[in-house]
Amino acid sequence: MKTKTLALLLTGGVFALPLTTVAKTVKVDIPVVEKELAVDNAGTMQAMWTFGGTIPGPLVRVKQGDVVDFTLTNLKSNKQSHSMDFHAARVDVLDEFAPVSPGQSKDFQFRADYPGVFIYHCGAEAMSEHIARGMYGVIIVDPKEGYSEDYPKPDREYVIVQGDLFKDGTTPNDITQNVGKAANLINGKIFHYDPVHDQNASLALESKPGERVRFYFVNAQINDSVAFHPIAGIWDRVWDNGNPKNVSYGMQTYDVAPAHAVTLDLISPGDRPTNNALVDHQMKNAQTGAITVLMNHSEADPESGRGSNLIIRE
Amino acid sequence: MKTKTLALLLTGGVFALPLTTVAKTVKVDIPVVEKELAVDNAGTMQAMWTFGGTIPGPLVRVKQGDVVDFTLTNLKSNKQSHSMDFHAARVDVLDEFAPVSPGQSKDFQFRADYPGVFIYHCGAEAMSEHIARGMYGVIIVDPKEGYSEDYPKPDREYVIVQGDLFKDGTTPNDITQNVGKAANLINGKIFHYDPVHDQNASLALESKPGERVRFYFVNAQINDSVAFHPIAGIWDRVWDNGNPKNVSYGMQTYDVAPAHAVTLDLISPGDRPTNNALVDHQMKNAQTGAITVLMNHSEADPESGRGSNLIIRE
Amino acid sequence: MKTKTLALLLTGGVFALPLTTVAKTVKVDIPVVEKELAVDNAGTMQAMWTFGGTIPGPLVRVKQGDVVDFTLTNLKSNKQSHSMDFHAARVDVLDEFAPVSPGQSKDFQFRADYPGVFIYHCGAEAMSEHIARGMYGVIIVDPKEGYSEDYPKPDREYVIVQGDLFKDGTTPNDITQNVGKAANLINGKIFHYDPVHDQNASLALESKPGERVRFYFVNAQINDSVAFHPIAGIWDRVWDNGNPKNVSYGMQTYDVAPAHAVTLDLISPGDRPTNNALVDHQMKNAQTGAITVLMNHSEADPESGRGSNLIIRE
Repeated sequence: MKTKTLALLLTGGVFALPLTTVAKTVKVDIPVVEKELAVDNAGTMQAMWTFGGTIPGPLVRVKQGDVVDFTLTNLKSNKQSHSMDFHAARVDVLDEFAPVSPGQSKDFQFRADYPGVFIYHCGAEAMSEHIARGMYGVIIVDPKEGYSEDYPKPDREYVIVQGDLFKDGTTPNDITQNVGKAANLINGKIFHYDPVHDQNASLALESKPGERVRFYFVNAQINDSVAFHPIAGIWDRVWDNGNPKNVSYGMQTYDVAPAHAVTLDLISPGDRPTNNALVDHQMKNAQTGAITVLMNHSEADPESGRGSNLIIRE
Repeated sequence: MKTKTLALLLTGGVFALPLTTVAKTVKVDIPVVEKELAVDNAGTMQAMWTFGGTIPGPLVRVKQGDVVDFTLTNLKSNKQSHSMDFHAARVDVLDEFAPVSPGQSKDFQFRADYPGVFIYHCGAEAMSEHIARGMYGVIIVDPKEGYSEDYPKPDREYVIVQGDLFKDGTTPNDITQNVGKAANLINGKIFHYDPVHDQNASLALESKPGERVRFYFVNAQINDSVAFHPIAGIWDRVWDNGNPKNVSYGMQTYDVAPAHAVTLDLISPGDRPTNNALVDHQMKNAQTGAITVLMNHSEADPESGRGSNLIIRE
Repeated sequence: MKTKTLALLLTGGVFALPLTTVAKTVKVDIPVVEKELAVDNAGTMQAMWTFGGTIPGPLVRVKQGDVVDFTLTNLKSNKQSHSMDFHAARVDVLDEFAPVSPGQSKDFQFRADYPGVFIYHCGAEAMSEHIARGMYGVIIVDPKEGYSEDYPKPDREYVIVQGDLFKDGTTPNDITQNVGKAANLINGKIFHYDPVHDQNASLALESKPGERVRFYFVNAQINDSVAFHPIAGIWDRVWDNGNPKNVSYGMQTYDVAPAHAVTLDLISPGDRPTNNALVDHQMKNAQTGAITVLMNHSEADPESGRGSNLIIRE
């Protein structure tokens, strides 16, 4: 099971996209893998800690009311204790979220009562270091009512997670104080999808002109908020925490607190190709990695932002 | 009157919980007391400035439409001028909120026109230092409509105020720039209600499983915002500024600006005991004091979070 | 045309206040002017870069649905390339918002689809420096529905833009990291409208007691958010991004992310003269410039906050 799950995760698999409204139990197995990973488009390696071998970890997606049956496995080859803190769960911080030693595993269940988009992250001490080394991911809880006029069906969906990158070897105490922060990661890499600012970038997000593109944006930074803005565009709607009831209209910039997540829709002009740059408008973070290009053109890859391609990897 | 009020304040008294909907005048006397106070659970003393001898100052609670008849008394034994800035008041900054010299007192009245939760604080120069030394408290203005489906009656209520602690002797200029910040205070003490992170902590907040627990959260820090998150839980509803009209649903993290306040409800699973850790998810603040434990268990003290026990003191 | 527009701008002109609901095309010409400007009320000069010769640049005001026909002219006497990024526009970041060399100009059009208040700013590299040297302004897009019960007609309107001031000669890299920040500018000057904190200040905002005063508040800082609070008052309503649909009630403090903008109404007591101090409640920013006095008195200048006097200059 572990091997199969790990293989699934490493290919960017998505858990359990529900097709009906019947609540069900969704099995989610995530192993913790301490490993070296490329943190930029040039392939610079750094020692990171991960859920499932990637940053962010595997996307978990369930329907409101589903029960998540979760197993965390801390590989024997790891050196640290780790834990899992699902922001979508109502459980016991001292029980379900307790740390797991290398070579051990832990199971727990929770029902996804609230719809929206939530971060999950490691909560083992020093939590700052565990998160800053990459131990985070995303769970989407689709609302049980499905789509509606107030929460329309999107044409494409992308998950974007902004995280910190600290200089290799920064102490946990310094990390906690944000000392030694070197760059910003978008889905695990500096300027991951920004060929404008990074000549080594080969990926960008894509849509066709006029499509409704939905972003599930997660702030995985340990201290910094994000002022999320689509250059040359306007968020058509923003749902705070991704909950269909929490809607704002026509927003230029949306503040996302650390360990928070929001859902935002962008609609580009329908009559011509355009490009947007999704940016943390705090310049200190934008200019060190937190810019993502969205290309709106008629030849947009039909697979991009659909099915299992919500987090674009390699 | 002064003596009686001071005595009331020092025992954690609450002003004037209105039982009817008839607007009335509520007399509130608060003396300023410059004194040494324990700022952690080990009893470490530091020279602080206070409203009424405690940090935060006495809880003021009125009904929307009530008139607050307020007297500030700056004790003759104090060294500084002080003032009172009620965020719930519409008055003249140059008149009602003007500084008062040691040995003097000042009266003013205001009608509490807007419902919700508000900070009060000293506004005398250098305001940074006065707030950072502990001169803040909370006024709750209950809505004149009372409870409703949109603003349900809670089972328990707690007031939590997060403040800064600077190293003793930090200059006002450094305080203003957040230089010398040493820790975070929750209702006046580092890790006040967190026996998990502080072996000297003897208190925690309590509720029974499944109860609706309401938090009036006030950010009394002079520069930092708070990313307020209930670990292992989800805010069922959040009312911005505590106003029943400003509701958000199912929030994992809520950003609270400095000198702002919000009301948040948490409902734990009803079928088992659990624990939450209410945390500023900015790690620099969490790991230096801003974590509070809420124990949800069937033996929860029936007095806790009720009557005059909204701010838990010794 | 250029000369006429420049002259208009330098006298604080306002573009195109529409009087009817018929969508139309509004011509907006803004030259970029690199020049020395007084950054405080004492007249201290610093080398700044501006839209139209002032900080903030000229106020642009259109009706939702109008087309803005925009020309940016980079004067031949300038040394830098510059660009225009209207947050109210949906265009192509690589086309309309591309940089323009000295001596060149650029035209583009956009339809103002979303109502509210938006920043515009230069996006040329290093963007941090261009914004921090003063290259920003405001566009108000009045809603096509006009005023309503939910978005009442104000008695006066003021535009307030809070920006950074860095020490002269600060490098772009330091600016990006907020190193060398010396003060905060309100509409281009430290304590611009605050005679209480600056003896050289000769201006204040004005209203009559009880009037509904509307503030279009724009955060032009490159990294810092603003905790916007009216001392001795309460925001009667706040519209996030200025959109009539995004309303909050009775707010003491409103968090405004960098490169974001909000609309806020304040109503002073109707039966007496009072004063408010509009402040960024982050003390580090308040105490270095970000305080504005609003005088509510029966002799308030009838021209102030009306017509072309929404941004009070000299």
